[in-house]
Amino acid sequence: MSAFPPLWAEIADIGRDPGGGYLRYALTEPERALRDWFRCQAGQRDMPVTDDGNGNLFAWWGAPWGDDAVLTGSHFDSVPHGGGYDGPLGIVSAFLAVDRLRANGLRPLRPLAIAAFVEEEGSRFGLACLGSRLFTGAIHPDRAGALVDRDGISFADALGARPAGALPDLAVRFSAAVELHIEQGRALEVPIGVAGAIWPHGRWRFDFGGDADHAGTTRMDDRHDPMLTYAYTVLTANEEARQAGAHATMARVAVEPNATNAIPSLVRAWLDARAADTAALDRLVEVVIKRAVDRAGRDGTHVDVEPESVSPEVAFDAGLATRIAGLLGGVPILPTGAGHDAGVLSAHVPTAMLFVRNPTGVSHSPAEYATDADCAAGVAALATVLGDLL
Amino acid sequence: MSAFPPLWAEIADIGRDPGGGYLRYALTEPERALRDWFRCQAGQRDMPVTDDGNGNLFAWWGAPWGDDAVLTGSHFDSVPHGGGYDGPLGIVSAFLAVDRLRANGLRPLRPLAIAAFVEEEGSRFGLACLGSRLFTGAIHPDRAGALVDRDGISFADALGARPAGALPDLAVRFSAAVELHIEQGRALEVPIGVAGAIWPHGRWRFDFGGDADHAGTTRMDDRHDPMLTYAYTVLTANEEARQAGAHATMARVAVEPNATNAIPSLVRAWLDARAADTAALDRLVEVVIKRAVDRAGRDGTHVDVEPESVSPEVAFDAGLATRIAGLLGGVPILPTGAGHDAGVLSAHVPTAMLFVRNPTGVSHSPAEYATDADCAAGVAALATVLGDLL
Repeated sequence: MSAFPPLWAEIADIGRDPGGGYLRYALTEPERALRDWFRCQAGQRDMPVTDDGNGNLFAWWGAPWGDDAVLTGSHFDSVPHGGGYDGPLGIVSAFLAVDRLRANGLRPLRPLAIAAFVEEEGSRFGLACLGSRLFTGAIHPDRAGALVDRDGISFADALGARPAGALPDLAVRFSAAVELHIEQGRALEVPIGVAGAIWPHGRWRFDFGGDADHAGTTRMDDRHDPMLTYAYTVLTANEEARQAGAHATMARVAVEPNATNAIPSLVRAWLDARAADTAALDRLVEVVIKRAVDRAGRDGTHVDVEPESVSPEVAFDAGLATRIAGLLGGVPILPTGAGHDAGVLSAHVPTAMLFVRNPTGVSHSPAEYATDADCAAGVAALATVLGDLL
Repeated sequence: MSAFPPLWAEIADIGRDPGGGYLRYALTEPERALRDWFRCQAGQRDMPVTDDGNGNLFAWWGAPWGDDAVLTGSHFDSVPHGGGYDGPLGIVSAFLAVDRLRANGLRPLRPLAIAAFVEEEGSRFGLACLGSRLFTGAIHPDRAGALVDRDGISFADALGARPAGALPDLAVRFSAAVELHIEQGRALEVPIGVAGAIWPHGRWRFDFGGDADHAGTTRMDDRHDPMLTYAYTVLTANEEARQAGAHATMARVAVEPNATNAIPSLVRAWLDARAADTAALDRLVEVVIKRAVDRAGRDGTHVDVEPESVSPEVAFDAGLATRIAGLLGGVPILPTGAGHDAGVLSAHVPTAMLFVRNPTGVSHSPAEYATDADCAAGVAALATVLGDLL
């Protein structure tokens, strides 16, 4: 796929931050530039672009919104200082797969849509897979529209309208969906794999409350310092996740007043937790909350916990996964701890994911990458799968 | 002092934040409004105002910059969401003490200056007592001018000029200094006390570095998560300070990228540490750093520590403290864990501090307060002391 690096290079500088990696938040200038690039690429291929009124774009080979269509694509948005592959690789590869199928003379029996879903990471409005949730009706448009970013701008304001909400008759309109994505751990030792399942996962907001006071003059015994409760919870979540064979992370925190010489009144932090099944996830989160609350009770602070988004386990269509793995010469089928738009779609449409090998396992980081050869293998695999489905 | 509440009420709303307490950062709009109020109050009392070119204001009763003067006053700036007493009480009380002395017919033998020192809290430019350090030559003007706030604005830019630096012949120009301040712990059980010493104290910046990665897909054993090292250090600092009878606080933190689903690459945090003597402070900080570095070494993260400001122990002029305590009828002499402009001045001029009782001990918080009766007692005490010194 000699076309791969040039097409990739066109977007390599969009939203790149001098501090490292990409700042491509949904509906901000860099992500809008990528959407413009998407429209341009679609135009060059005579693929009309439609918008579902939720911020998701669809470039069509065949009749827009025609029945029985096949969906592919991914998302443009990044986590703060994220890598360039998580998301865009699936969209770039989809355009290149169309080129390859056309070069091979394929005449599709049904429409193909390349999707660019909005706000997959949840980095701006706090809810992952927001675009695909709206598209499938997994979230009410009013609730989605009211989500605000860190500057207080609502999703509806950023979008310029109330989100339109679910596309009716999704299961009739689409016969299958395939998202290509860079693998995000070190689980894949060959260039291409197929997703079997997504671990159940979620985000819980912890508000650790205490009493603001002077750091210099307040006796240690008189303090109600929520930073201590937070620190204890960070270590507890790590320890419990290790024991459970699960994943737990506290990576985002906001402190009030966040001054060197003032004991905080509030430490707000988020727990990201994932496990192989729902029961294990529930047990993990329950024990972390219990231990945090116990500790808070002992030192006069308090903890409120609010689940912000909890996604159940996704088992992708087993027949489709097995068929695709076979088509690709017996590539491995593997689970992942990361959420994806494909996971949201899979509740409505037979859905599969193709993973491209990640040599270091690093993701959500400037260091995230896949080799050009593996990316090219991804395009070839996606073309094979789409050719079969179309 | 029936004049106290009305004068206090004039500034009560300046810089008050709907989120609680005050946002009165140095040289921002609210603090500039307080400086305007200062000029207005001085004008009403025929007290000419001079500026030392460092951002510090001086309202004069008698010849500006005349030899042998007495210095009083405090600062207007607050910590984020701080209380209204820490700083402004010393300035308001100084004007009211002048009113009282004039009503009593005092004719001073030497000039009095009421000072409003800039950036005492260090909440904007990161270095506490910046104004008094410049005034006394404890910091080079170029270094002070280059300090930047969180938006990258330098102190020189905020000031509108390179700071002028030390006033020459400080020890000749001033014969004594007295700062009135709200007490910030629960050490004072009568309305008024006199400071004996300020604990040595400082701020150390800890950069906990690790490897950004995906929170969902990275195996627990593959992580180099600096949030864990930070959390361990928060708890360690607390434990070591308790054992040493000292104070240690980690209350300010900045995380990169600070996203729910991305293991951080960097957690930057500040240690505020204070102890009764320099040897105890050194021992405390040393053991916290050693334990943090040891822990980092065990989990593949790393720690860099940079002292940002370290202030040695201040023993106020013992003769002056004893004399003042006697003048006020035998009030207690007590140490404090908080830094003050008076501590900086004391290296050059015989300096004392008057403390006004803090009924809850709460400070650097919206809940900080002193009773009107105790504030009035503070004005009376300051008038007595200034009358003696003038």
